[in-house]
Amino acid sequence: MQYPSKLVEEATDQISKLPGIGKKSALRLVLYLLKEEKIQTEALAGSLLKLRQEIKYCKSCHNIADSELCAICSSPRRDRSVICVVEDTRDVMAIENTAQFTGLYHILGGVISPINGVGPSDLKIDALFERVKQEGTAEVILALSPTMEGDTTAFYITKKLKGTPAKITTIARGVPIGGELEYADEVTLGRSILRRTPYETQ
Amino acid sequence: MQYPSKLVEEATDQISKLPGIGKKSALRLVLYLLKEEKIQTEALAGSLLKLRQEIKYCKSCHNIADSELCAICSSPRRDRSVICVVEDTRDVMAIENTAQFTGLYHILGGVISPINGVGPSDLKIDALFERVKQEGTAEVILALSPTMEGDTTAFYITKKLKGTPAKITTIARGVPIGGELEYADEVTLGRSILRRTPYETQ
Repeated sequence: MQYPSKLVEEATDQISKLPGIGKKSALRLVLYLLKEEKIQTEALAGSLLKLRQEIKYCKSCHNIADSELCAICSSPRRDRSVICVVEDTRDVMAIENTAQFTGLYHILGGVISPINGVGPSDLKIDALFERVKQEGTAEVILALSPTMEGDTTAFYITKKLKGTPAKITTIARGVPIGGELEYADEVTLGRSILRRTPYETQ
Repeated sequence: MQYPSKLVEEATDQISKLPGIGKKSALRLVLYLLKEEKIQTEALAGSLLKLRQEIKYCKSCHNIADSELCAICSSPRRDRSVICVVEDTRDVMAIENTAQFTGLYHILGGVISPINGVGPSDLKIDALFERVKQEGTAEVILALSPTMEGDTTAFYITKKLKGTPAKITTIARGVPIGGELEYADEVTLGRSILRRTPYETQ
C-alpha cells in the first residue's frame, strides 16, 4: 500500500501490531481519528501511556491493581481460606460477575506451554506455593482452561502443593445450563455422564 | 463489567470509542499492551499524538499530506489537465494501486448526506469549482460510490461545474472482470447491458 503520508503510515503500522487488527482496519482507525476532534486522540494516547506507567500488580494475588494490594485481597469481606487459581485478569472478571465466589484469587499470568516457551518459572506458581504454606489455605480451586496446557498446569500445581494441608478442587465441567444435549461436544457429554452428580430436588 | 483497576477501565473506555471495537475487544487489547514491552505502548501512543499534531492537508487536492502540497500534486509527472474527484484518502490509495491514472485528485471529504447532516458546504465542492476555473481543467472524473448519497453528490457537482470548460465523466460501472454473470446483482447487470461498449479485439 502506498500511504499519502509518513505519519499515517507510521500510525497504521503501530495500530496493526495489535492482535486481530490488520493493515486495512488500522488505516480505517487512523482516518477515523483524523476526522474526529483532536482531543479524542489525545485522550486515547494519554490513557494508554498512563496505564502503562502507573499500573501495579497486587503483591498477594498478582492481579492488575491500582495500589499495592488489589480491591479483592484488601476486602475484609472475602473468605481468606479459599484461593481460586486462574490464568489472567479476564477470568477473575468472569468469575466475579457470577457473584458466586467469595474467596481470594491467584493469577498465574498464563499456563505452562513449551511450544510458546512458557515454563513453570514464568508463572506465579512458586508464589502460590509460598502463599498457601504461609496462610494455611484450606482449599485451592483450579479454574484453568480445559486444554492440554491448562491440564498440564493443573497437574504441575497439584504435585507442587502436595504436602500442604490445602484441599485441591477443580471447577465442574459438563453440559452448559441451557445447552441442548445434541449440540454438546462428545468429550464434554461423555465426561458429564461419567462424573454424574446426585440429583438435587431443592 | 467490573474492572480490576481504574487505569484499565479508562484505557478500555477510550479504545472502545473506536469504530468496530467493543468493550470486550478493547479489554483484550489493553491486557495485550500490559503484557508486551512498555516501549510498544509508548510507540503506539507517540505515533497517534504525532499524527494528530503534525498532519497537514494538501492545499490543492485536500488529501492528507506531510507538507503543504501532497506528493501527487507536487509531482511533475502527473497530467494536470485531469482531476479525479473522490470521497476520501482510501479511494486515492485504491486508484493509485491500479497504476492506471496519471492525473490529479480532489478529495471531497465525504458525500452529501442530509441524514448525517452533511451538506455541500461541508465538502470541498466550492474548492473544486475554483480549482477547475483557475487551472482550466479539461476533464473531471467523478469516482464516487454508487449509492444515493454518491449519486446526489455527483449530480450537485455536475450542476456546479456547468459553464466551466471541463468535460465531466464518471468511472465505468458494470460486471466486475472475472465476475460470473449469474452472481452479478440485477441493477449492475441491467446497466451493463444498456451501456454496452463496442467489442475491442485488440
